Amino acid sequence: MTKRVLYDLAGQDPERRFSPYCWRIKFALRHKGLAFETVAWRFTDRDAIAFSGQGKVPVLVDGEQVVYDSWKIAEYLESTYPDAPTLFGGEAGKSLTQFVAAWVDTILLPAVSPLILVDIPPLLDAGDRDYFRQSREARFGVTLEALCQNREERVMAFRQSLLPLRRMLADHEFLCGSEPGYADYCVFSAFQWARCVSAFALITDDDVVAQWGARMLGLFDGMAGAAPGFALTGGQGESIAL
Amino acid sequence: MTKRVLYDLAGQDPERRFSPYCWRIKFALRHKGLAFETVAWRFTDRDAIAFSGQGKVPVLVDGEQVVYDSWKIAEYLESTYPDAPTLFGGEAGKSLTQFVAAWVDTILLPAVSPLILVDIPPLLDAGDRDYFRQSREARFGVTLEALCQNREERVMAFRQSLLPLRRMLADHEFLCGSEPGYADYCVFSAFQWARCVSAFALITDDDVVAQWGARMLGLFDGMAGAAPGFALTGGQGESIAL
Repeated sequence: MTKRVLYDLAGQDPERRFSPYCWRIKFALRHKGLAFETVAWRFTDRDAIAFSGQGKVPVLVDGEQVVYDSWKIAEYLESTYPDAPTLFGGEAGKSLTQFVAAWVDTILLPAVSPLILVDIPPLLDAGDRDYFRQSREARFGVTLEALCQNREERVMAFRQSLLPLRRMLADHEFLCGSEPGYADYCVFSAFQWARCVSAFALITDDDVVAQWGARMLGLFDGMAGAAPGFALTGGQGESIAL
Repeated sequence: MTKRVLYDLAGQDPERRFSPYCWRIKFALRHKGLAFETVAWRFTDRDAIAFSGQGKVPVLVDGEQVVYDSWKIAEYLESTYPDAPTLFGGEAGKSLTQFVAAWVDTILLPAVSPLILVDIPPLLDAGDRDYFRQSREARFGVTLEALCQNREERVMAFRQSLLPLRRMLADHEFLCGSEPGYADYCVFSAFQWARCVSAFALITDDDVVAQWGARMLGLFDGMAGAAPGFALTGGQGESIAL
């Protein structure tokens, strides 16, 4: 049997796995029915993945193959395991999934960042904290505390910005229709990232986005729901109830 | 042969057809290879489409069938003409297309409106002008002139908001991949709406979105490009060059 290993971003607690890009791939591997192990990886562990020729996770080692970049890994899984359930649903579905991924990368994740980033450093391994703070503060041009101030007021605009998702999920179980697909994994992994690091509630219980989120938490024997983190909605405590 | 008629929003010039929802259906009919006639319709012509049981276009009369609402018409065409080229590319593609349509309806069209609405009343039939101004001013809570002021400055933020589209189109001919589909028609029809009524340039020539737009203008013997309007980019004059 092929040995399959995913290098997966972790916090000080090696079980706290919060990278939205790594979550996409954990969902994708389960969707394809592929067994895998994960290796807890920290931002500053460049040596551990030097074999991949670059410095970011996810990195998937699939037997002899080494693949990095979440989109390239998803394409690799779809073409290498064509008989397993499809991630994309054909050529148009794959192309439209790439639009959804671009929306997540350029709109959704940048909208989530100023609501949660300040909560990340205390959860990181000591060696990662300075790197994380300095790189993110350079990117945003302000301290993480300043970036996240007034988040209780700004979250209303964030919730409003989810309208395309909300409108679409009012009619569908999943973004990909009656079954989840890679587009669902891309979008949900942004919420899972937030849930794994912050008690701040991005969405409310009565939102169809939260109801879809609960379905996503329950997929694959509750894989995402079992991950250490906070509630998807409500924002208080360490609850991970489905 | 089935007689097929589309009620299509028009300006004072009956050849000026600008509704983004009607454009989706003109593209969809040509995509399916279906011949059709259009009837120039004005906002206040409620009697002319009373047979459909509601008051908005597009309304498609396909032989004995009457269908309204652009998404329902697209679904009707896909299911009624399954042997013609697919609009959606399967179940996942259809569901993801509905996400794209929701993004257009809730994000893209509301972002285009404050850049072009002020240019519409002079192009409308005299009987439509008061209705249009009053209904839109009530919706936005300001005069059309106030809504559109400083658009030269605001258009930069609009262009920035197209990033998911731009990133995705950098790698693909069309949103649906190597061939256009209904998701392309939904998005492009927002730009075609603007092009049909306003000389104000939403996008610039060097943008991959504009290059995709030029491909969209050229589809189906240049159907959209031949429609009376202004340039897709650059924003000056009545040029409709491809």
